Order: sequence, then structure tokens, then C-alpha cells
Amino acid sequence: MLHVLLFFYFLVSSSHAAVQDFCVADLKAPQGPAGYSCKTPAKVTVDDFVYSGLGVAGNTSNFIKASINTAFADKFPGLNGLGLSMARVDLAPGGAIPMHSHPGASETLLVAKGSVIAAFVSSDNTVYSKTLKEGDIMVFPQGLLHFEVNTGRTPALIWVSFSSSNPGLQILSYALFRSSLPSELIEKTTFLDDDEVKRLKALLGGSG
Amino acid sequence: MLHVLLFFYFLVSSSHAAVQDFCVADLKAPQGPAGYSCKTPAKVTVDDFVYSGLGVAGNTSNFIKASINTAFADKFPGLNGLGLSMARVDLAPGGAIPMHSHPGASETLLVAKGSVIAAFVSSDNTVYSKTLKEGDIMVFPQGLLHFEVNTGRTPALIWVSFSSSNPGLQILSYALFRSSLPSELIEKTTFLDDDEVKRLKALLGGSG
Amino acid sequence: MLHVLLFFYFLVSSSHAAVQDFCVADLKAPQGPAGYSCKTPAKVTVDDFVYSGLGVAGNTSNFIKASINTAFADKFPGLNGLGLSMARVDLAPGGAIPMHSHPGASETLLVAKGSVIAAFVSSDNTVYSKTLKEGDIMVFPQGLLHFEVNTGRTPALIWVSFSSSNPGLQILSYALFRSSLPSELIEKTTFLDDDEVKRLKALLGGSG
Amino acid sequence: MLHVLLFFYFLVSSSHAAVQDFCVADLKAPQGPAGYSCKTPAKVTVDDFVYSGLGVAGNTSNFIKASINTAFADKFPGLNGLGLSMARVDLAPGGAIPMHSHPGASETLLVAKGSVIAAFVSSDNTVYSKTLKEGDIMVFPQGLLHFEVNTGRTPALIWVSFSSSNPGLQILSYALFRSSLPSELIEKTTFLDDDEVKRLKALLGGSG
Amino acid sequence: MLHVLLFFYFLVSSSHAAVQDFCVADLKAPQGPAGYSCKTPAKVTVDDFVYSGLGVAGNTSNFIKASINTAFADKFPGLNGLGLSMARVDLAPGGAIPMHSHPGASETLLVAKGSVIAAFVSSDNTVYSKTLKEGDIMVFPQGLLHFEVNTGRTPALIWVSFSSSNPGLQILSYALFRSSLPSELIEKTTFLDDDEVKRLKALLGGSG
Amino acid sequence: MLHVLLFFYFLVSSSHAAVQDFCVADLKAPQGPAGYSCKTPAKVTVDDFVYSGLGVAGNTSNFIKASINTAFADKFPGLNGLGLSMARVDLAPGGAIPMHSHPGASETLLVAKGSVIAAFVSSDNTVYSKTLKEGDIMVFPQGLLHFEVNTGRTPALIWVSFSSSNPGLQILSYALFRSSLPSELIEKTTFLDDDEVKRLKALLGGSG
Repeated sequence: MLHVLLFFYFLVSSSHAAVQDFCVADLKAPQGPAGYSCKTPAKVTVDDFVYSGLGVAGNTSNFIKASINTAFADKFPGLNGLGLSMARVDLAPGGAIPMHSHPGASETLLVAKGSVIAAFVSSDNTVYSKTLKEGDIMVFPQGLLHFEVNTGRTPALIWVSFSSSNPGLQILSYALFRSSLPSELIEKTTFLDDDEVKRLKALLGGSG
Repeated sequence: MLHVLLFFYFLVSSSHAAVQDFCVADLKAPQGPAGYSCKTPAKVTVDDFVYSGLGVAGNTSNFIKASINTAFADKFPGLNGLGLSMARVDLAPGGAIPMHSHPGASETLLVAKGSVIAAFVSSDNTVYSKTLKEGDIMVFPQGLLHFEVNTGRTPALIWVSFSSSNPGLQILSYALFRSSLPSELIEKTTFLDDDEVKRLKALLGGSG
Repeated sequence: MLHVLLFFYFLVSSSHAAVQDFCVADLKAPQGPAGYSCKTPAKVTVDDFVYSGLGVAGNTSNFIKASINTAFADKFPGLNGLGLSMARVDLAPGGAIPMHSHPGASETLLVAKGSVIAAFVSSDNTVYSKTLKEGDIMVFPQGLLHFEVNTGRTPALIWVSFSSSNPGLQILSYALFRSSLPSELIEKTTFLDDDEVKRLKALLGGSG
Repeated sequence: MLHVLLFFYFLVSSSHAAVQDFCVADLKAPQGPAGYSCKTPAKVTVDDFVYSGLGVAGNTSNFIKASINTAFADKFPGLNGLGLSMARVDLAPGGAIPMHSHPGASETLLVAKGSVIAAFVSSDNTVYSKTLKEGDIMVFPQGLLHFEVNTGRTPALIWVSFSSSNPGLQILSYALFRSSLPSELIEKTTFLDDDEVKRLKALLGGSG
Repeated sequence: MLHVLLFFYFLVSSSHAAVQDFCVADLKAPQGPAGYSCKTPAKVTVDDFVYSGLGVAGNTSNFIKASINTAFADKFPGLNGLGLSMARVDLAPGGAIPMHSHPGASETLLVAKGSVIAAFVSSDNTVYSKTLKEGDIMVFPQGLLHFEVNTGRTPALIWVSFSSSNPGLQILSYALFRSSLPSELIEKTTFLDDDEVKRLKALLGGSG
Repeated sequence: MLHVLLFFYFLVSSSHAAVQDFCVADLKAPQGPAGYSCKTPAKVTVDDFVYSGLGVAGNTSNFIKASINTAFADKFPGLNGLGLSMARVDLAPGGAIPMHSHPGASETLLVAKGSVIAAFVSSDNTVYSKTLKEGDIMVFPQGLLHFEVNTGRTPALIWVSFSSSNPGLQILSYALFRSSLPSELIEKTTFLDDDEVKRLKALLGGSG
């Protein structure tokens, strides 16, 4: 029995201090380019690795008849540094997730309920578009513009995964029309006309 | 109008050849450490980015009352090089995915239907275990042993995402008892006794 | 002297075969997620590491009074795998590089001649905009929308560097209006009105 | 001479502040996903880059007739962020390092003295096994189960290197039988029988 | 209008906290292997992404008739974590940047004015050398010795980009002769003779 | 029993094709920036993961009383893509490994026999030097100049590990004096005098 104890002593002592299988986000400590600082291992519990915030459908009683609910590292600290995150998308019939991109991640989209058109556009302006039914998965390569529209008669539920714990989310019409970009610069760099730019700024709340 | 054409000429000519937003797997060309070779862009279609093979429940009429169906880059070539893949897990009541690890990827697990116990064990032998209900997500850090068991009375459906397009899958009892590892070496390196090793080799089909 | 020769024999023989300081692109061999295949080292010359194609000003007699000329790995094979590439931007007075993003790279922009307004928009719709003069450098983080406009009275010359040998280039209005995206989907996902979408499709050559 | 001084002034001033050739671990500052925070460069000495803790044979008077002594970044701070670490394994005749894996690293194993059987098992349950003699090197790809057994009549000394400064170490029978995993779940997910699970829990100190 | 507000509420609330498109260096907080800690996003301004320090020619009235002025993350904090940095090189006629390497980055060199000979040496002692004229770009693969010499009759201006926000800069003759390396060790490991080592130590200010 | 077979069918069929736990180098197929192409898994044997070429002491009857023998991926194909390689260094009394750097890797050095002085120089010309005895480990950060000298009275044996399967090896005096660099350019960029450059070119076999 003494030998067993000695055995434990050696192996455990040598491996213990070096253990860092994960780096649960300490949301109050400094962040770096690779993510949040790590919570002290002694304070980590299973709840850091479980997130229940996507269990309920989002409210789609809005302009776009859609909702996005994210589970990125800022809400789900166990993801920090692991190169993964998720989101839940709910789309009422006719609902749409506006054209957007994720600056730092590729994405898989799984249609759990309903039927949607999903598409992305590549650098050479080719459109990759498909009507997806329940159980279908589509992948959007990193940084490219894409969107989803519920083309069915029932609500759609979509589960999204990202190749980063912090993928970013740039919504095209928000970047243009809900920001402080001056109308003149928008027009010059998108070829949109002045009336349309001003209409959308008024609609979406842009200044500038 | 001539100016417009000139404009197209310049921008398009300069960006066209350099486009490589993605690298759809050419399953017949050489693989490298970063993944499969890329299919010629001209032959890529939207179907390379869509996978429908996970839309149907797996057959759980088996020993473990469970099935795993993967969507890795070898089946879903659009994933190649994008750092993501997926799998579908079906668990009949009482079903279990055996203890396993993914040598090259972290994993998120989303319970779409039913209720499961999921757990992983860290390097210092701490168990992180939780009973998950519909809509819950759990994350398993890279390379650690983990499993899922359906503890409910109804079938469970789980969607799994990985931080690699080729995550690997090492099932513990298969590695030990369905391989050609000699019984003597298994016993010496796991402390299991000879009877048990031989029983499991017979059950699971090991040689050696 | 024999000793010297022996010395050479040992060190040179041991290091020679392992040398791979670079991986000059073989444009005809398979590509993978990490870039082009490597040219046989014996065929590599200094000319693979030198590119002269950006030495001449681009033609700005066009719609946007601008030109972009890229030096990505497809034209400058020595860059392959080294995480760098370049481009030259020429802007006549009033010229503009349209709103665009690089899906796979961050960018530095150096104003070599003239004066330009440059700006990018972040995920939370903040605009980072500045009038740059000769010698100023601005950095655009990966994947975010940005643009440059010559606000001076003289031609501007800009040198651009990317953190990838293959950064991609998605021009916003081309992705929307020079592609095959159906007008209805563009409108639904950008809130633009039908007249404007059709005007721009006609202008830029979109189908769909 | 003035020119020389001016020269020094320019080159040194421009390069000095940017120097960060290394990031010696500051074990008391926050950790992040990429490793420990860096010690202030001014406090770094050569001793941060040298480790003498593996110079003495480990005590093999134990249950497994073996010892592992690690030199990971927590003990050898100069390794931090450099993608390398080491360990020393001593095996008395008949000694064995139990079946284990490193979740975050590949490993090379060099037999410095003696003769050992080493093996790893791949995802498809293939066993790669070899009797190694003095001077032989074997490589274990990341995250796969492997072990070493001294099959000779003399003590064996093994030097191990890892592709991470923090590779982790999951010992299979510890994860199962020295943890708080409930016996029922172990049995369900490994197919081991109840008697054997309880015997090993008693032997190795498991709870649950 | 209420719907619009609700829409904003959902999308903005879900994406806001997770935004980390960039990690502007907080030069006073801890550094890690991946770079500086991030400045609080609320304090980031456009000036963090713009650097004007390279707009003026460096003083070349010195020993080497050359100056290097760097824009690494320590001076240009917006670069932190983005894998890019820059430098400006001024060379009077006959001026030279001494033989050096960047331990952590590849480099592109653009000749903006004048004419220079640039060269690097690979691991197998092959020299890749070229006389570059205005507008030419050369790339130096990571970690290899290289240099530039102004061979023209007019001052040369060179813009340099690196594949790291912190590339390092090891000047060969400084490492040898301006450091505390003992002469005996320099001689033994470079084959230089004692007189020459001592002459250069005196010239460049070495001790040891 | 049928159930067992079904079980095997499902799990094995789903995981089999996706398995790529390793990428053993196929030395005859194209290389890419991430390494060699992978050998067909069916042809991989344990011998691809074992290398015996470092078991014998190198010949130190030469100019530098030293030998280096490498185990990089070109000789030890199992290392390909795993971020590790090794080398054996033998040093007769008074022997020295000349000043050199590894452009693409950090290094650990373990003194297995004898006593050596090892040192590296950082970007700010600080020397990190130490006399190492048996069992000591030293780490050299990536890309920096370093060397080892046997200062004892007995042969020294050193085991070296690298953080890349293809680390490169640039020997300083070879790069300068055994290459085709013109004497004039060497002198201008190193401050060495003409006599010394010519003496070393004659000694080491340089042309140019």
C-alpha cells in the first residue's frame, strides 16, 4: 500500500500544477488577442461548461420577424480559447436574417425546424444559394456575406456554430445606415443614390 | 459606358485569379497536414457546401441503443480547411455514447430533444458532469475523455460541432478491446484483470 | 584539409534534405487549405521572390477613378505560405475604392502620395475614419468593411499590405448587384427598395 | 565617432521597445488561452531558460515501478509560448507508464537507456507498437492513447518532448477509477463489469 | 415603429457584448505569448489605428548612411494581434542596412524611391540577390539573414511590411560585437580571428 | 449478437473514412506550406513512427570536433505536421557547434553526457549564456543566434528537440563565407574587413 501511495505522490505531483486543459473566461480580467484571461482553475465548475440561454425561442415580433441569440465566450465562458461558439436563430414565416458576415469565423448552419433559403457570395461575386429543409447543414466560409430567409409557412429554428469563441457579427445595412458614416461617403463607395441612403438612415437610425 | 467597362476590367482582372475564399476537398487528390487538396474552383457548386446526410435519425437498435453519424470533411467537402465539422447523435432511452475523445478538436453538444447526462474528465481527474435538458449546450475541451447517456424516457437527439474539419474519434473500449493490443500489455497499463480483459476482447472483437 | 571536408560532409549532409525555408507556389500543382504546393527547390530562383508588377500606376480613367493592382501568391509565388501579400491602389482626384472587405486578412494602408479619407466600420457599427496624409499608415482589422476616397486635388498612391498571401477581396456592391442574387432576396436582407436594387443591377451588370 | 553614436542611437532606439523574442512565464499574473503572461523583460535572466530538475532519476519504488517528472511551463518558465516542453521517464525492470494521452500535444520519446515496448492506438483501433532500443525515437500523434513498458532487465531512461509548453496528461485508469465518476456510468460507457470497476476504484482511490 | 425598436433591441443586445473585432494594445497591462492585453473597447479611437511616425525621412548622417524606423505594436497599438507591422528604411547613396534577421516574421520590401541591392541567404547557403528598382517588391522568408544596400546615386526609400505585429530584429554584427559574448566563444563559433573580433568589439561597443 | 454487429457497423462506418490522426510524409508527393502530403493510411506502418538513425554517435574527427545528425520529417516521416523534430549533437572535448539559428522553430537542448556552454543572443543583443551539466535543459527561442561548446574533458552528447517538423538550420559562417555572397557586400553589411572575409571564404569554400 505504501507503494501505491508513493506512486500517487509522484504522478500526481508532477502533473498537477501543469494542468491547463481549458481556459474558462474570467470576464473581469484583461483580454488578449487569443481571448479572455483564464479563471482560476479551483473556481471552475461544470456550470462554466454548460449554457442554457439558447433553450427558449427568441421573440420574432419585430421588423425582420427574426431573432438571433448568441452563445459566444462573453456569455458562455467555457468556450474561451477553444475555437467554437454557437447561436440560435428563430425565423417566423417570411422572417429574414439580414445580409451579414463574421469577420473572424466560418459558420455551419443546421436547420432544426422549417425550411429556409440560405446563401453566401464569394469574392468573385458567385452566389451559392440553396433551399434547406429540416436536417440540412450548410457551411459559410469565413468573412463572406450571407443571409437566411424563412420561405416556409411555419417558424424555422436554426442552430449555428462558429469556428471561433468570438466570431464577430457585421450586419451590412447596420454598418452602412445605423452608423455615423456620412451619406456622401456611403454613396461614393456603394453607388447607392442619396434618397435611398437617407431613407435607410432614417429607418435604421444612422447619424453622420 | 466605356469607363464602366474599364472599371470592371481592372477590378475583376486583379482580384479574379487570387480568389480562394474556400478550399472544397478534392477527395481523390493528395492530403496534407492542413487537410485535403482543393477542388478546382470552377467545379465547385453550392452542393459542396450543403450536407443532407444528418437529416434522418440513426438506427439505435443495437448494443448501445445509440448511433453517431458524422459530417466531417470526408463526407461534407465544403468543410475542408474551415475548422468546423458536425455530427448527429441519436440515443434511445437508456442509450449511451461510450467513453471517447477527439484527439484533434474541442466539441460543443446541443441537446435538441430529450434529456442526457454528459460529462468529461480533466487531466487532474476532476469530473465535470451535468444532466442536460432540451436547448442546453455543453462544451468538451480538446482531447479529454467524455460520454453521453440518455437518462430520460424518450429518445434523445444531440447535435455536435467540432473545432476541426477532421476531429478524429477514439472510443476507449474499442482502442483497448477491439484492437490487437496484447492482453498482458492492456493489463499492465490499465490495472484491469485478465478475466475482464478477455471477456471484453471476446465481446468487442479484439485480437492480440 | 581533410578534416574540413569531413566537417562539410557531416553538417551539409545532415541539413540539406530537410531544408524548406520557403514554399514558392507551384501554380499548376494542387492547392490545399494552407496554400499552393511548393515548387521544387532546385527550380526556385530569386525571381520567384521579386515582383515588378506594381511599379507602374494603374489606369484610373474609369467609373471610380481608381485602380487596384494586387500582388497575391497567384502572381507573386514567393509569398506562398508566408502570411503576407501586397497591393497598389491609385486614386485620381475624387477617386474611390468602393466599400469592401478581405475575408481572410487584416490590412495596413500606407499613403505614399496625396491625401485620402479612409475608414472601417466595426461589428458594433462604430465608424473609425480619418483623413490621412502622406506617410500615414492605417490598419483595418480582418474581415471588416472599409474604403478609401481621394479627397485631395492630386492623384493619390497607396501601398497596401495583407496578413495573408491570399487575402480575398469582397466588393460590397459587386456582391449585391453584379452577382446573380435575386432582387427580392437583396431587398429582404438589406432593406433597399426595389427601384434602387434594379438601378444598380443594371449599372453594375447583375443578373438574377 | 559622432556618426557611430548617431547610428547606434537610431537603430537601437527604433528596435528596443519592440523586442519580444520570448515571453517568460510570470506564474503569478493572469493566464490566457495562449499561455502565461510574460515576465517583465528586465527581470528575465538566463536561469529562466535553463531547467535542472530532470537531472536526477525519479523514484521507481512504487506500484508501477516508474516515475514521470515533467518540465512544463509551470516549472520551466522560459518555455512559455514556445510550443515545446519535456519530461523524464524512469522505468525499473518491469515498470510501466500507464495508458494515457496528452490532450494538447504530440510527443517524441527517445530511449536513452534500456529497452522498452511503446505503442499508441489510432482512431480506427490500429495498434502501432514497437520494441525500442537505446537511441530509438518514436512519435505519438496528438491526443491518442499510448504507453511504455520496460521489457528489459535494466532500468530504462526515456526523454520525452511535447509540441506544447502545456501538453496536459490524462491517465486513463485515473480518469476512470481515481475520479468521482459513478460506477454505473463507467460501466455503461466502457462495458466493464461492476466488480472490476469497484475493485479498481478501491485500488486507485476513486469516489462517486 | 415599435417593431423596429424591438428588432434593434434583439440584434444589438445579442451582438454587442461579444464584439471583439480587434485588440488594441494596452501597453501598461500584462503581455502574453499572443501579444499585449487589449485596451478597453470604449477607450479605443481611430487614432489607435493610425500611425504618423513614418512620414518623415530618418537621419542618414551616420556610420551606415541609413536609418530604420519601426511601426511595431509597441508604437502603433492598433496592430496588436493582427499579424502585421511596418517599417521605413532610408538609405543615403552608399548606405546599407546591416545583415540581420527577424526571428518571428517574414518580410516584404517595397522600393519606393531609388535603387537597391537586396539579398537573403537560405539554410543551404544559397544567395537570392537582386538589384531592385522603384516599384519592385521582394519577399524575405521568416528568420533568414538578409540586407539592403543603396547602389544608386540618389537616396532610397523603402517600405517594409512584416507578418507579425512584433517581428523582432537581430542585427548580426551587433549580436556578435555589441554584446557581452566573450571573444573566445565568438572566435570558436564563427571562425573569425582574434584581431578582427577585437577590432569590431571596439568599433561597435561590445564587452565580454 | 446481431445488435452488437449492428453497433459495430454504425460506429465504425461513421468514423472510419474521416480518420486522420496523423499525416505520415509521402516524400514523393507534392509539399505545401504545412508540410509533406500524407502517405495513404493503408500503407502506414509502425516503422513510419520510429526512427533509429540517431542511435550511433556522429563522427567528430573534423574541423569543429562536432557532428549534428538530424531527425526531421524528411528522414522521419511520422513527424510530418506534428510540430516536432529532433537532432543528436556529439561534441568531442573542445568541440563546438558553430553560431546558427533555426528560422522556423524554437529548440530545447538536453545535455545527456558531459558539460557544455550554451548561449543565445536576443534582439537587444543581450547574451543568455550558461554552463550546462548532465541532465540540464536549455531553451532557445525561435530564430535567434545560438551555439554550444564542449568545455569538459569528455565527449558530450546532446539531444535537441524543435517545435517544427522542419525547423531549418542557418549556420552563420556558412551563410556568409560558404555562399556566393560577394566580399564587398559582406564587408559593407557586417563591418568585417576584406582580409578576414577572404580568409574565411578560402577556408570555408565560398565563391562570389
